[in-house]
Amino acid sequence: MAQPRILEVRKNILEKNDRLAHDLRQAFAHHGVLAVNFVSGPGSGKTELLRRTLIELGRSQRCAAVTGDLATANDAARLAQSGAPARQILTGTMCHLEAAMVAAAIADWDLAGLDYLLIENVGNLVCPGDFDLGEDLRVLLLSTTEGEDKPLKYPTLINTADAVIINKLDLAAAVKCDVDLLEANIRQVRPGAPIFRLSAKTGAGFAPWLDYLRQVSQRKQAGAPA
Amino acid sequence: MAQPRILEVRKNILEKNDRLAHDLRQAFAHHGVLAVNFVSGPGSGKTELLRRTLIELGRSQRCAAVTGDLATANDAARLAQSGAPARQILTGTMCHLEAAMVAAAIADWDLAGLDYLLIENVGNLVCPGDFDLGEDLRVLLLSTTEGEDKPLKYPTLINTADAVIINKLDLAAAVKCDVDLLEANIRQVRPGAPIFRLSAKTGAGFAPWLDYLRQVSQRKQAGAPA
Repeated sequence: MAQPRILEVRKNILEKNDRLAHDLRQAFAHHGVLAVNFVSGPGSGKTELLRRTLIELGRSQRCAAVTGDLATANDAARLAQSGAPARQILTGTMCHLEAAMVAAAIADWDLAGLDYLLIENVGNLVCPGDFDLGEDLRVLLLSTTEGEDKPLKYPTLINTADAVIINKLDLAAAVKCDVDLLEANIRQVRPGAPIFRLSAKTGAGFAPWLDYLRQVSQRKQAGAPA
Repeated sequence: MAQPRILEVRKNILEKNDRLAHDLRQAFAHHGVLAVNFVSGPGSGKTELLRRTLIELGRSQRCAAVTGDLATANDAARLAQSGAPARQILTGTMCHLEAAMVAAAIADWDLAGLDYLLIENVGNLVCPGDFDLGEDLRVLLLSTTEGEDKPLKYPTLINTADAVIINKLDLAAAVKCDVDLLEANIRQVRPGAPIFRLSAKTGAGFAPWLDYLRQVSQRKQAGAPA
């Protein structure tokens, strides 16, 4: 009957994470940095979405990124092609990012010189849901190649998302994805969240997504101390 | 400094699971049932692979399936279309199947009447790796739509696989997947494991996969008590 003890240890882990996430959130607020946590299953196109987002936002604003993987620094290298600072977090066998990993990765960055921090979580449609990283926005990606039923089968993480992106719109016809059905399934699980249909690869549908980020950032910077 | 205590509780969970998995493995061995645990990220096509495998094997042998999801019984309904017994395991917020869930799901099935038990894990390319379900084979699916780099970025689960399937071969050209590169990346992480290129949707490449299962099953039944 180890159950109560397991629950207690789990509670302690989450409480410690929540304290660190609270500190990160305060630091982001103080410096007017918009922090965005990107979550999805493996292969939904998070890295390509971040790469293009960094390039587009970077034309007029200061962006940086951290990216989590169990192994390889491939994603940080891809993101650095955008010209923005990018750092890899290696999680080893861990299935999600925690606030302490993000805090360590950005410890020597000057937040006063940043407008956006994009955080790419480990590809996992379940576990990142429990771990607050101090972000302002949690954005969930689903791609047209994964099937229309994923929102219904993985509701817990989607329920914590502030916005949802339907990625790989350019492949929808080839993989016979019913995008309207996918969007209806998202709305069923997470009513009211903004949904963006786009292709990170081609850039189609990217303008509304960038406008959304800029609007949230402007609202945040208006409320930040001078 | 809660780390040692966390590790201890985690060890207890895994030890309890390993004991239950050991019992399941003994029961499968006693009855000559080949148990196969299918793992992959979300949307790699596990359910379609199981559905077709149940139909093809079911022409001459006795098969059943259990399928894990956080929510919905959609997959069990799809698998039952094959004519084989299929049962849904709902994991709630859990990111993987455990031996106790499988044991409970099949508790009233007569194993003596079965040749194959196919187990569809929760779609997650990390967490199922730690949890033995008493299976004879762990089969990992990757699909051509997920990108060629996934073996390198998620090495821990692949390292535990007995065989790897490259699924959605019919979409490889449309999504510009370099299947040779994907296969080379699999071999780099998990040298020596058999790799099957196929399309669960069209059935292309299915014969070598079925032959493989039948050969492993025959070897097992030859060793089982009469």
